[in-house]
Amino acid sequence: MIDTHEKRDTNSKPRWEDVVAQKKKQQAEALAINIEPLPSSIAGSITALTSPDEITSKILSGQLTSHEIVRAFIQRAREAHEKTNCLTEVLFEEALNEAKKLDKYFSEHGKLVGPFHGVPITLKDQFNVKGYDSTIGYVGRSFKPAEEDAVVVKLLRSFGAIIIAKSNLPQSIMWCETENPLWGLTTNPSDEDYTPGGSTGGEGVLLALSASMLGWGTDIGGSIRIPSHMMGLYGLKPSSARLPYRGVPVSTDGQEHVPSSIGPMARDLRMIHAVTEALISAEPWRLDARCAALPWREDAFQEVQSRPLTIGVLYDDEVVRPHPPVARVLRTVVEALKAAGHEILEWDATLHPECVAVMDQYYTADGGKDIRDAVSEGGEPFIPHVERLINSGAAISVHDYWALNRSKWELQQNYMEKWDNIRSPKTGRVADVVILPPLPHTAVPHTACRWVGYTKIWNFLDYPALVLPAGNVKQDDIDEPWEFAPRNSKDEWTGKLWEDQRQKMADLRLPVGVQLVCRKLEEEKLLGIGKVVDEVIRESRAGPK
Amino acid sequence: MIDTHEKRDTNSKPRWEDVVAQKKKQQAEALAINIEPLPSSIAGSITALTSPDEITSKILSGQLTSHEIVRAFIQRAREAHEKTNCLTEVLFEEALNEAKKLDKYFSEHGKLVGPFHGVPITLKDQFNVKGYDSTIGYVGRSFKPAEEDAVVVKLLRSFGAIIIAKSNLPQSIMWCETENPLWGLTTNPSDEDYTPGGSTGGEGVLLALSASMLGWGTDIGGSIRIPSHMMGLYGLKPSSARLPYRGVPVSTDGQEHVPSSIGPMARDLRMIHAVTEALISAEPWRLDARCAALPWREDAFQEVQSRPLTIGVLYDDEVVRPHPPVARVLRTVVEALKAAGHEILEWDATLHPECVAVMDQYYTADGGKDIRDAVSEGGEPFIPHVERLINSGAAISVHDYWALNRSKWELQQNYMEKWDNIRSPKTGRVADVVILPPLPHTAVPHTACRWVGYTKIWNFLDYPALVLPAGNVKQDDIDEPWEFAPRNSKDEWTGKLWEDQRQKMADLRLPVGVQLVCRKLEEEKLLGIGKVVDEVIRESRAGPK
Repeated sequence: MIDTHEKRDTNSKPRWEDVVAQKKKQQAEALAINIEPLPSSIAGSITALTSPDEITSKILSGQLTSHEIVRAFIQRAREAHEKTNCLTEVLFEEALNEAKKLDKYFSEHGKLVGPFHGVPITLKDQFNVKGYDSTIGYVGRSFKPAEEDAVVVKLLRSFGAIIIAKSNLPQSIMWCETENPLWGLTTNPSDEDYTPGGSTGGEGVLLALSASMLGWGTDIGGSIRIPSHMMGLYGLKPSSARLPYRGVPVSTDGQEHVPSSIGPMARDLRMIHAVTEALISAEPWRLDARCAALPWREDAFQEVQSRPLTIGVLYDDEVVRPHPPVARVLRTVVEALKAAGHEILEWDATLHPECVAVMDQYYTADGGKDIRDAVSEGGEPFIPHVERLINSGAAISVHDYWALNRSKWELQQNYMEKWDNIRSPKTGRVADVVILPPLPHTAVPHTACRWVGYTKIWNFLDYPALVLPAGNVKQDDIDEPWEFAPRNSKDEWTGKLWEDQRQKMADLRLPVGVQLVCRKLEEEKLLGIGKVVDEVIRESRAGPK
Repeated sequence: MIDTHEKRDTNSKPRWEDVVAQKKKQQAEALAINIEPLPSSIAGSITALTSPDEITSKILSGQLTSHEIVRAFIQRAREAHEKTNCLTEVLFEEALNEAKKLDKYFSEHGKLVGPFHGVPITLKDQFNVKGYDSTIGYVGRSFKPAEEDAVVVKLLRSFGAIIIAKSNLPQSIMWCETENPLWGLTTNPSDEDYTPGGSTGGEGVLLALSASMLGWGTDIGGSIRIPSHMMGLYGLKPSSARLPYRGVPVSTDGQEHVPSSIGPMARDLRMIHAVTEALISAEPWRLDARCAALPWREDAFQEVQSRPLTIGVLYDDEVVRPHPPVARVLRTVVEALKAAGHEILEWDATLHPECVAVMDQYYTADGGKDIRDAVSEGGEPFIPHVERLINSGAAISVHDYWALNRSKWELQQNYMEKWDNIRSPKTGRVADVVILPPLPHTAVPHTACRWVGYTKIWNFLDYPALVLPAGNVKQDDIDEPWEFAPRNSKDEWTGKLWEDQRQKMADLRLPVGVQLVCRKLEEEKLLGIGKVVDEVIRESRAGPK
């Protein structure tokens, strides 16, 4: 009665390649609709806008219409897709119609429908949009359009946002790159041999190429933060209960051990802040029973902007050492923060390996059955990473699963106590925030990612985490001394990556981010601190070296 | 490293009966310590006090010392235990020493250590108290004293409360009566053939006999509310994340599907309110990583006391019909609420059977292994209910467990939407609160409880629920027309109970409660409404019929 996945007669099941061909044909038609082009100078000035206020003020002043804005971003989205294969469902026609409606509303009423009136957005192909598939990278989920918008989609539409497309992700979403047999491989616009990261990789590309103003992803181990870091973007993974997950289908749905979060990605922190505040202020707990009834706390957002911060810094998780540019960017940010009057505490990696070890035991708690069933529903092959994942362990019993949960709770408690015990010798204060690398490396060649311990621990602890763009790989990084004494196979792999790829990474000037982390449900505090740190970074990048 | 239950050589395991004899001997010694008796009129005036302010004002004015207060309650606790076998660990000596320390502090500083200075409390034998066992009804947990106080125990001590004893509960806690092979059977002080309810049955007896001012229980299906209802007490089951569970061992620990809550029981709603507010104001989320960081919201507590309430009423869950006195007391309360100007909405049992059906599939998700292991650790026999429970289903796979979780989330969402859709035709408002029976019957003979659907659904939904005393069985109830057309075997069993026991129930004037329920994490609102409803009930019981 409740769980009604349809069963189909396997004899009548179409070949997966035929399903793919049909989806691609549908996509090609939706991409090819006739749209009057904007002059490129106008289009460029529109897609350079990054905050919702910039959009709405231009609409209010009559300088732009929603229709023009959408056309400009659609033009970019087509180019981005041609270059990187980043789109899945294409909503151009619907988006143009929505824009016309908004323009009509504005001309009739002289006011906006909401704070995101005319803002073009995109969604990872996991958010339900009525009438469109949510494939999450599975062939078997094709041609099963959602009957209803996800809660977050409903809210974004009510604010006036316009969905122009959905974007690519890996089969099963359980991978930090972006490939599946249905939609294919999404490439990094800097170099087609490189990944843009994942699992929210399509969004990363769209935002980096100014083909969307706001992207929505999900994150169960780093899937918002990794592409944000690799593509030079802002990305927020909130605590899982803060924003409404309802209407976002996910692999291994029903597991409660490590919660997945939805969150925004953008080229501008003001966008991340505006949309998070707007969603929380819309009281999502009245629409999604799994949301925490916690209003937006403006005082917490403001308070941290008014005083010196206490900042824990973790340079190395002691499993995989960051590449020189990642380490150098973090050091530079820390120096700039010190210079701006903030206090830095050394953080250490205590409990990090234990947390990751417990987390890893969960991944195959069902023996990989959920993902195996979803793939066999469509009949397509596995991508190698997913195949390795589901074959990495046998199903465990519910009794052992409960024991794992106890270990998890204990580690969550221990990490809380660790946070309380690292105190400033000067002020006695505990850290307001911890800063660390999002990944040990920048964007890398496809299939080269091996270690996401810097991001996934915060899913295990359910702490909010924010990635900010903070620098780029430079030629100087190559000249850094690089003593290579691998600690383990993942460290060895990652170290070799640097040796093999460093010249190319420097030539491509690949982006490098930093990651900020606060404690559970402290989203307001994190965004307030993010604003402070972002300003320090931007000043230090702009200023004389 | 984390989960370190010791393994013992089974050859060296003592006979369970010997362990029981040793525990009983230890208990007898602790009970028998020499305490100078108080004159019974003074003792009686002390144990008649029910709110923390009554205690602290008498200490502040010099009318009473903590030592006198503790002696009075200890005297009562001995009598209660003699009558009902309600105690497990006995802390009389430690309590008297604590009282002396408090008296010394007060005489030296002229002030109290906290808002519960000198308040004698008791705890279900599940809360860790340093140096004492937490048996949760298992022989195998004997002589394994806790190394640390539970978080809630630490906080209560910091407020000045004094622990005088721990109290009995059923083997495994998974039963709404109170018996185990270690401590034996706890009886109802009104009639030894009757149960006081459970699983927090020892607390129910202690409070009803004025042998404690504040009791602490746990509730995963009704274990605070059922003994509160049967014994004429106030009992609060908060949402699971509101008060700190840390340091309270529990059967099937590690399961996250239906969360257990800790909560207070008392003879006075002021006590429940005072302790809940004090604990939340102590920011327990800084001490227990599983607590929600949600401050006490005084505005929500006050607001509902200032206006007519919208109250949903559910008379019958359509599975087991309430006995006539339970139905009559609820009707009387509803009439009094109407007369006081509140609006009543008919609530229906939609989704109740579905919620209970999904919940029941969880109970044996591990095939009963957790409880079976804990019992075999000690070697004692099962009590019949627990044996039935663990044999009622085979272990399920983690994959099926996740599917159950999806069903649960869906039902939680549906119940949220149900609540939003039942609206006052007059004002359009949704219910502030739902009122319903806590159980279909009053206290009953031992082993006669069969249906806790009226309480356990709120654990499944994680909504806070409060039981208030509201009446007693009367001779008139027997004369009510009683048409007996059983709906199912549980309804038939429960109906027969009325036929067999009604004269005795009336003779014993057994207490009857009502249950109030608000939505997830609305504890302040629930306590504010509880205050309003309690005043209406007490006025209507005091006034001319």
